[in-house]
Amino acid sequence: MQQENTHERNKELVADWQALMRTFICPDNDVSQSRLVKYMQQILFGLQDFLKKHVGITEETSLKDLVKAYSDSHINENPEKKLTDVITDLIEDVAPHAVNVASPYFVGHMTSAIPFFMVHLKTIVAALNQNVVKLETSKVFSVVERQVLAKIHRLIYRKSDDFYIRHIQSTDTALGCFTEDGTLANITALWVARNAALAPKNGFDGVESEGIPAAFQAYGMERAVILVSRLGHFSLKKAGGLLGIGNRNVLAVDVDHNNRIDLKCLNKTIREINKTEGKTRIIAIIGIAGTTETGSIDPLRQLGEICAEHGVHYHVDAVWGGPTVLSDKYKHLLKGIELADSVTIDGHKQFYMPMSCGMVYFKDPKIMDTVIYHANYVNRPGSVDLGIKSLAGSREANSIILDCALKIMGRRGYALLLEHGIETAREFAREIQQRPDFELITPPELNILTYRLFPSHLKKKLSGKDPARIPHIRERLNEINRRVQILQRERGKSFVSRTTLKMDGRPGEDIVVLRCVIMNPMTSMKILREVLDEQEEIYRNFFGEFAFLPENRGYESSF
Amino acid sequence: MQQENTHERNKELVADWQALMRTFICPDNDVSQSRLVKYMQQILFGLQDFLKKHVGITEETSLKDLVKAYSDSHINENPEKKLTDVITDLIEDVAPHAVNVASPYFVGHMTSAIPFFMVHLKTIVAALNQNVVKLETSKVFSVVERQVLAKIHRLIYRKSDDFYIRHIQSTDTALGCFTEDGTLANITALWVARNAALAPKNGFDGVESEGIPAAFQAYGMERAVILVSRLGHFSLKKAGGLLGIGNRNVLAVDVDHNNRIDLKCLNKTIREINKTEGKTRIIAIIGIAGTTETGSIDPLRQLGEICAEHGVHYHVDAVWGGPTVLSDKYKHLLKGIELADSVTIDGHKQFYMPMSCGMVYFKDPKIMDTVIYHANYVNRPGSVDLGIKSLAGSREANSIILDCALKIMGRRGYALLLEHGIETAREFAREIQQRPDFELITPPELNILTYRLFPSHLKKKLSGKDPARIPHIRERLNEINRRVQILQRERGKSFVSRTTLKMDGRPGEDIVVLRCVIMNPMTSMKILREVLDEQEEIYRNFFGEFAFLPENRGYESSF
Repeated sequence: MQQENTHERNKELVADWQALMRTFICPDNDVSQSRLVKYMQQILFGLQDFLKKHVGITEETSLKDLVKAYSDSHINENPEKKLTDVITDLIEDVAPHAVNVASPYFVGHMTSAIPFFMVHLKTIVAALNQNVVKLETSKVFSVVERQVLAKIHRLIYRKSDDFYIRHIQSTDTALGCFTEDGTLANITALWVARNAALAPKNGFDGVESEGIPAAFQAYGMERAVILVSRLGHFSLKKAGGLLGIGNRNVLAVDVDHNNRIDLKCLNKTIREINKTEGKTRIIAIIGIAGTTETGSIDPLRQLGEICAEHGVHYHVDAVWGGPTVLSDKYKHLLKGIELADSVTIDGHKQFYMPMSCGMVYFKDPKIMDTVIYHANYVNRPGSVDLGIKSLAGSREANSIILDCALKIMGRRGYALLLEHGIETAREFAREIQQRPDFELITPPELNILTYRLFPSHLKKKLSGKDPARIPHIRERLNEINRRVQILQRERGKSFVSRTTLKMDGRPGEDIVVLRCVIMNPMTSMKILREVLDEQEEIYRNFFGEFAFLPENRGYESSF
Repeated sequence: MQQENTHERNKELVADWQALMRTFICPDNDVSQSRLVKYMQQILFGLQDFLKKHVGITEETSLKDLVKAYSDSHINENPEKKLTDVITDLIEDVAPHAVNVASPYFVGHMTSAIPFFMVHLKTIVAALNQNVVKLETSKVFSVVERQVLAKIHRLIYRKSDDFYIRHIQSTDTALGCFTEDGTLANITALWVARNAALAPKNGFDGVESEGIPAAFQAYGMERAVILVSRLGHFSLKKAGGLLGIGNRNVLAVDVDHNNRIDLKCLNKTIREINKTEGKTRIIAIIGIAGTTETGSIDPLRQLGEICAEHGVHYHVDAVWGGPTVLSDKYKHLLKGIELADSVTIDGHKQFYMPMSCGMVYFKDPKIMDTVIYHANYVNRPGSVDLGIKSLAGSREANSIILDCALKIMGRRGYALLLEHGIETAREFAREIQQRPDFELITPPELNILTYRLFPSHLKKKLSGKDPARIPHIRERLNEINRRVQILQRERGKSFVSRTTLKMDGRPGEDIVVLRCVIMNPMTSMKILREVLDEQEEIYRNFFGEFAFLPENRGYESSF
């Protein structure tokens, strides 16, 4: 019997043209259709069951075991498994080792739960399989993308009705572009900024055509720089490297005690650059609307004024905080964003879209002309093809997801989510301040805060009279927080992240902090208190004043 | 009654915290669950119904009407529609204006039908919503991505078991990377090539850090170039522009009469460059395995030898043809690909994955060290985080789709699809040659061919004795083919694309050709004959020897 079954299974699993063809035809009959629906049911609720059983972020299987299990590099000659087995395997064997980013206890990163309808919308995108690189493979979805871009552009820039009527579907202009993610959005913005700064003139054909050395010669310059606070996202340095200006020329400006770019330092840097009389030229100055590590917002209006004064491209990296413009209550936090020449926002962050979707917006609808590319077989001049002004070529029609989500939730719906995050973060900050064994490091401006375990007996010691002991205590504090974060992650119930901050007023001191991002509407104060309770408990168990440090189990190298 | 209904509907459509929260919780009860399943059913089969009713590529609504319908840039304050209405609208009002890329009559572009299980797999990716930028938001899916990369790397490079055991899950090395699409894969390959060519030396910190002008100084050079045949994809020029070497320095080498890079021309160009004694330096030489326009394959082995001789990075753009390595019958067409330092392949092309997925592979598992970026809060040195060596930051876990597809279809399953395309294209070429009113322009090497309508009476005229008439006849031929392509597309039953080729042996003559890409397994010779029949019929109706040209209805500007 066993043998017969095996034989039967093997018999089915041969690559076969007829069977293959059938996978391209949607079945007409009820039996086959209901099988396909059953798979979807498994996906929708089987995965959910796992997530429910599994309140924590991940199953305990160590990375080492996983690595062993996924070390075969051979591809089967014939089909290895049937669809139904593949889906069952995914749900039973693979998904349990995924990270439960949807858990309300997962408050460590900018990835979170998404409304379940997002899964339906993504499925529609996949089922239609349009390619928005050109109208011939997307038609209405190219038109939808332009409309959605105009809707978000309007939230940021609040131009006139006339402006949007003129540009929303114009083939001559572009209000922005969808990208794979925030990194590619930032790269697109700085690519455009570089090309606008080193534009064609007097026989010089522009940096895009002739390259940077020729551009430097044409402009009589020796160095191009980009200025951003030292809390700028690492994609900005990457952009500097990629674009050929050199990532060391993305200059990190110091921050004030609120983790905002220090305008005095910025102005000083600009003055020094201006002394070079054009030998060094600023390609862009960047304001951050929600730094990755602390959620801080740079003084956007003042930065805009400084850029205007010096005629420099003003980019706002609002990859995280951008959607705050949807909230009447908190949009003032982003005041001045409308001065930006370019703005980047992530769809899969605070627009709660599925992975992954970035966007870039431009104030001047003609500025993307600096990155136009044509081809003979598509993207001919004058066509509607979105691929003419885009870093990527083939792209999915993700704009329809955002369009539908805006219709389903309304602006107010999004605002409620954003407001929940900001207000819960504030309450959480108060809770941290009330606990004697914690220290709030960066209070939340948006919905991100950092803090650390700082046991009261160490607080006393640090304020004590023995300065020689201070470096030792600081190191011990860092070690405690590093280990507590790792041990809590290992336990698998809750997850906060950690980072290392340089603190204004504490020169030379790198402090390890715990970082909390509150965007899941299911994350309540009750849950956040549990997170703190567990951290206290881990500390007491493993670090009590005279306890030995737990053995280093090589977590650092595994995560 | 009407009023009451309206009132009731409006009552529901208010942004409300409780309702919003519920969208983040997967419902427990059967009624709500079955509603969610019903939506999926609608998506799976409702969209299919449209595609079936709609054998052609698109509904007739003109772009002008669509543009009018999508010109409102306002976002509703409250929810505009319920999920069920949004899905119904999408299926009934939006999808009919999409392009039916799944139609077997849609043979004009590299976008096609995908097996229906791909939609299920994409749904799983969306439901789990992992972010493979870092292990903390993806765990097993980072491990899966590395495994899949090794599987495809092995198909290309056929290294030893030891090699793959050593590198498949090593945190120190990388066999490649998933990207958004082929353009970003090509950009990644050339980014790495640029950085490897202009690496750190003698106090110079490398081009990524110091920028191109400093690199030129350190290497005593004045110009960096990339060499590729003039049929290279436009993403390669874009890469040149983006990377700061200037897109005019992506030099187009002429092709032979088979549309393959002309090695004599290439060697001549290299000799000329070498005469500059290092002032001009070649960053990369590119071989194409399947040009976008004609599907031609460059002599990959010889190119590899030339690159080795001159110590130049060898990149193979196999975005289209790469999966041919899966077919025992035709993999010889890509002989020499294993010599490449980098290879790019698209997942959403001949791996039949949903939009969009690109990949880049590297022979040397250490070469991606040239593009490493770290951050404090993620991607710390030594970690498994995939975002350390990647152009993008946040990325979906698309590798699981390819992994599952390989299991479901087996290598042989993919091979059958590829072989069908190649063999159908050959048969189609014979059919074209047999028809008196057509001319085959580029015979298929893979599954792409170009041809044109060339009515027999014009053939006679062209071979006639009046040379003064020749330019006029050529222009008329171009006009005929341009218009027939547009009119056929407008009719909406079939779609071939068109492009403009310069032909070897016909200097100065740009000829407009029809371009056919055969990758849909449902595309049979019967269908292809119908496509030709319709083209003949359109020609006879609109162009017969003495007919007037149809009025220009502005198609060129709309598509």
